[in-house]
Amino acid sequence: MKVNDDARPKASPIPGIAHITLASHADGLSELSVWRQTMSPGAATPPHHHDCDEVVLCLAGWGEVHSHGQVQRFGADATLILPAGRDHQIFNVGPTPLETIGILAATPVVTRQPDGVELTLPWKS
Amino acid sequence: MKVNDDARPKASPIPGIAHITLASHADGLSELSVWRQTMSPGAATPPHHHDCDEVVLCLAGWGEVHSHGQVQRFGADATLILPAGRDHQIFNVGPTPLETIGILAATPVVTRQPDGVELTLPWKS
Repeated sequence: MKVNDDARPKASPIPGIAHITLASHADGLSELSVWRQTMSPGAATPPHHHDCDEVVLCLAGWGEVHSHGQVQRFGADATLILPAGRDHQIFNVGPTPLETIGILAATPVVTRQPDGVELTLPWKS
Repeated sequence: MKVNDDARPKASPIPGIAHITLASHADGLSELSVWRQTMSPGAATPPHHHDCDEVVLCLAGWGEVHSHGQVQRFGADATLILPAGRDHQIFNVGPTPLETIGILAATPVVTRQPDGVELTLPWKS
């Protein structure tokens, strides 16, 4: 058992995305990685998928998730369900930071471009 | 891809604990279950463990987690790391509701008393 107290995202190498890994294999887990991110207005993730299930919780702001031709707008208290292997891209479409919790069922997390090529994440996962 | 909009915990059969399952196998996942709970002042979970990794995020209030003789107090923005199989019990030790997100690396989730006997959860997991 361990308690981490810092939950403030820090600037990352991806423009417009601040990130902190709240929980991962570095904390003794083998099945979960939990991230907190802040996305600036106008910013977006690259299109990608993971080899594991993902859930994204929106804490504040307004976003849009695009996945396989579907587009859904979301705001605070929305839960995004992204089963393993589904390509998706998340945009901040509001005037304020988009605050999210990213929950992934693996650690480390494998992240791939839609063509299957692995993306190297700039943070521990 | 699916977006759930309701994140408000509802009264559960466990006294002092309101619960909503934000994401689970009912949403098409096979590896993750995500819960949001509100625990009333003075309330506690039973001592228990899961067969999978768990992470608890504290959104508001003050709690205490007891696990294998360790006691740690926590507040908003704390992340509790509870690897698979570790007994734990969470108490609301503050004067306000304890608001948490429970993240589990399985769906449905197996929950056991410290003696290993399975506890039947009163919600879908």
